[in-house]
Amino acid sequence: MFTARIYVTLKEGVLDPQGGAVMNSLHTLGYQSVKDVRVGKYLVVSVQASSQEQAEKQVNEMCAKLLANPVIEDYKFEFVGE
Amino acid sequence: MFTARIYVTLKEGVLDPQGGAVMNSLHTLGYQSVKDVRVGKYLVVSVQASSQEQAEKQVNEMCAKLLANPVIEDYKFEFVGE
Repeated sequence: MFTARIYVTLKEGVLDPQGGAVMNSLHTLGYQSVKDVRVGKYLVVSVQASSQEQAEKQVNEMCAKLLANPVIEDYKFEFVGE
Repeated sequence: MFTARIYVTLKEGVLDPQGGAVMNSLHTLGYQSVKDVRVGKYLVVSVQASSQEQAEKQVNEMCAKLLANPVIEDYKFEFVGE
């Protein structure tokens, strides 16, 4: 069993209204020192595979097909433990 | 300027319907090898601070007050670059 940590982020230059809303809330709470906030997704996916290469191939496909929108989002992933 | 990468995840044992929905979708797409999916949040926050200790203190407070719900979520963060 392989466990992948997947990070999905908006590409640079893509407007992030959710991040803007979080930043406004932080300012309202008194954290004027916050200059930028970007919000992304974090997924932990456990995959049964015969090898890490196999698992990598599958996770890569899943990201491209479902987990990220390749038009506006980037993704990266790493495997942890076994 | 300090940039923090913040990971917010549901605590173990807390039901994750969003993760369940993603897993079902992956199964529907043919990825039967997926055994578990947990969905969390990933935030990148830029903070102006005089030292990394100061920035750490602030980010920690922000997580506890706004970015994570300490009742059902855990958070961790790390600083990248300068």
